[in-house]
Amino acid sequence: MAKPGEKASSGLDAFFKARSVAVIGASSKPGKIGHEILRNLALYEYKGRVYPVNPKADEILGLKCYPSVLDIPDEVDLAVIAVSSELTPKVVEECGRKGVKAIVIVSGGFKELGGRYRQIEEEVVKTARRYGMRIIGPNCIGIFDGETRIDTFFQSRERMLRPPKGPISFMTQSGTFGCTMLEWAAESGIGMSKFVSYGNRCDVDEADLIRYFAEDPDTKVIAIYLEGLSDGRKFMEVAREVSPKKPIVVLKAGRTEAGSKAALSHTGWLAGSAAIYDAAFKQCGVIQAVNFEELFDMAKALALQPPAEGPRVAMVTNGAGPCVMAADALVERGLKLAEYEPVTLEKLRAELPPYCVPGNPVDLTGSATSRDYEVAMRALLEDPNVDLLMPFFVFQDTPLDEGIIGVVAEMREYGKPIVCCAAGGPYTREQVRKLEELGVPVYPIPERAVAAAYALVAYGEVRRKARKHQVF
Amino acid sequence: MAKPGEKASSGLDAFFKARSVAVIGASSKPGKIGHEILRNLALYEYKGRVYPVNPKADEILGLKCYPSVLDIPDEVDLAVIAVSSELTPKVVEECGRKGVKAIVIVSGGFKELGGRYRQIEEEVVKTARRYGMRIIGPNCIGIFDGETRIDTFFQSRERMLRPPKGPISFMTQSGTFGCTMLEWAAESGIGMSKFVSYGNRCDVDEADLIRYFAEDPDTKVIAIYLEGLSDGRKFMEVAREVSPKKPIVVLKAGRTEAGSKAALSHTGWLAGSAAIYDAAFKQCGVIQAVNFEELFDMAKALALQPPAEGPRVAMVTNGAGPCVMAADALVERGLKLAEYEPVTLEKLRAELPPYCVPGNPVDLTGSATSRDYEVAMRALLEDPNVDLLMPFFVFQDTPLDEGIIGVVAEMREYGKPIVCCAAGGPYTREQVRKLEELGVPVYPIPERAVAAAYALVAYGEVRRKARKHQVF
Repeated sequence: MAKPGEKASSGLDAFFKARSVAVIGASSKPGKIGHEILRNLALYEYKGRVYPVNPKADEILGLKCYPSVLDIPDEVDLAVIAVSSELTPKVVEECGRKGVKAIVIVSGGFKELGGRYRQIEEEVVKTARRYGMRIIGPNCIGIFDGETRIDTFFQSRERMLRPPKGPISFMTQSGTFGCTMLEWAAESGIGMSKFVSYGNRCDVDEADLIRYFAEDPDTKVIAIYLEGLSDGRKFMEVAREVSPKKPIVVLKAGRTEAGSKAALSHTGWLAGSAAIYDAAFKQCGVIQAVNFEELFDMAKALALQPPAEGPRVAMVTNGAGPCVMAADALVERGLKLAEYEPVTLEKLRAELPPYCVPGNPVDLTGSATSRDYEVAMRALLEDPNVDLLMPFFVFQDTPLDEGIIGVVAEMREYGKPIVCCAAGGPYTREQVRKLEELGVPVYPIPERAVAAAYALVAYGEVRRKARKHQVF
Repeated sequence: MAKPGEKASSGLDAFFKARSVAVIGASSKPGKIGHEILRNLALYEYKGRVYPVNPKADEILGLKCYPSVLDIPDEVDLAVIAVSSELTPKVVEECGRKGVKAIVIVSGGFKELGGRYRQIEEEVVKTARRYGMRIIGPNCIGIFDGETRIDTFFQSRERMLRPPKGPISFMTQSGTFGCTMLEWAAESGIGMSKFVSYGNRCDVDEADLIRYFAEDPDTKVIAIYLEGLSDGRKFMEVAREVSPKKPIVVLKAGRTEAGSKAALSHTGWLAGSAAIYDAAFKQCGVIQAVNFEELFDMAKALALQPPAEGPRVAMVTNGAGPCVMAADALVERGLKLAEYEPVTLEKLRAELPPYCVPGNPVDLTGSATSRDYEVAMRALLEDPNVDLLMPFFVFQDTPLDEGIIGVVAEMREYGKPIVCCAAGGPYTREQVRKLEELGVPVYPIPERAVAAAYALVAYGEVRRKARKHQVF
């Protein structure tokens, strides 16, 4: 627990910047959770000292193994616990006596099973508080740091990629969604700053983590997967304080009774009323995603692009079908199709080939070249009625030359947010990758691009409201 | 036009099984639409005879070039037209005189521009009808056949994959969505039977194509992207007749006023009232998707899995977070979480490790092995209260051995539909690929798996209703 006057989050450095880690329940058997965690810490990028703890082994993976954490002849910042729930109270007590600062309990078999298992969890928390230790978990995959490269995962490198360092920090009540987010952040190249899977959340909670991520200079966006909150008021207070400085995106599960019931048996927490959450999130500047892809999509947009100054979106395309779907989605999301200044339309008519349709979207047709896109995008970005530009690309269309990447790069100078849409196979993916390396996010279907645009518009509003109320 | 008494669709073989093709407006300049179309027909898998037509060239890509289609010393089944709209009436007239059977007009610049361009389109249609020729287009990318490998695309192979032969046939008013669908069908390995991008739809329409696809023995599922119908009654009549035999999935764009307006300038068609379309689709057994990913997802499920006998879904997982989202999505889609027979719960409790939670989902936890999955999946599939099985996999979790693929393969023998959910990086994709090769579809997020399940449940209902009314 934080001492009075001390920030609740300050103890969390012991997790992410641990100089030494004990793996309690380390195993010599590949495939066992206690083996895989040790292997990931000991053999890869993490530079701290790693100590296996297991009374039945002398050496694991070439490292001397200790019967108890008390036998380690070194300070231990972090203990990762992978023994059964029954054994956990004893080893947590030993961690306390050892002076361990932080604990990740990976094992399940606590509150989520109810009955006496719930009591074991309570006992563990009491012990940790007595010694001033913080706990993440139990029933989770733990933590990852993009800078120090510490990770407490039992997922092997062969099966799960680790992301490079990047601007998103993610906290999740679901380890499964955690794995997915890590690999999406790795494969998309956007990377991750800090990651926490906190499972049953017996101690360190969302509010602690939001505050910690808010202070982390490498975190630009805070993303959250949530089933239920233990302390809604604390969450909302911290979120309200942080959201004008860094965007917070949440995916809240358990909206229906059936989902709520599933959440209860998953992490032992009640999911609560969807309507109350909706209102509370809105009030404190938290942006809501409706599914896990959207959570990632929105986080990516908020990490790469500036917030929008208003809801007016201009589309440009070389294939207008997806823009019909996008127009529907924009309206359904409460965004607006920009209406251009007369001078914009004049420019478009004067400078584009005659078969182009200069509306919203500006339809450049399948014959479009990068020069046509440049003409259209400049005209739209210069229009004061346009808050956000949404270019659609059919990269499959042969007339679209590869100069398009450089053209989009130049559009960034206007300072307005840009969100793209394109889908296809290997060639399209290559172009998408190039655009995202420029910091311009690309989505495969219009609805996902619109969700990303919505996040940028919503966050612009959060900021404007906060400025008006002089929050910062 | 079909002669009286003749099936409207019978003329369409001339498109997909054309033995000879003239490319009118063939160009010697790489990157030009008339060059790329010729190149794709002449240099790759299509085995028919290909004739470039261009009065200004003698030879293109090593093929003798003809001044007019009338000069070709051979029968011409199909003409692909890539000249400007102004020149099109003349070349269509020549096609008629030549005895060409079918025409794809790729060029734009017709009805979608309004005014005199609309008249050009009408003139072209009149000419074609006079000669008994059918037209696909204009303003489209044309056709593809998985068997004969004919394609009229101006997208190069370097930029756009062609799918292998497969069970889905797709018609689309948007060439852009067409490109995406082709590449998704290619990369997922599911493949495609017949593909039509019909743009302005001046002659061959959805009803003609539905009937043709219904008669095509290689088509198992008919997928449609639609902005507006020209003849709603004809569409509904044919759909009602075909849907009990082959599933029809539709994505209808232009649900809002803004989308409608965008559709009008895209293909010159009014999108109509969303409520009327919803009711009509439902009445004639057409399943609706809400976005383009879902259209593909549903088509894949319907192509690979049997329809469900009812709406009761059982979930099993080694990571329960996504099941919380899935429970929400199932309820919101009108599906039901299966409630098991007491004997099922007894089996699960007796045969699974004690830390497993035998509810819906059956939570096998991160320690799950393929044996645990087998126990759970058999128990669920044997339960008469389960209509569809939805296994979730965290393939990243090391305890989950690769025997899981073989176990899922065995589950197919129960004859109940199976829809999976799993997401991640390269290792997960490899496992997903193996499952889909077995005919078991896998989706990255719970909402998409639930949409696929919904399609199987909805199609089961379409069939049961038709049986009751003795439609077949």
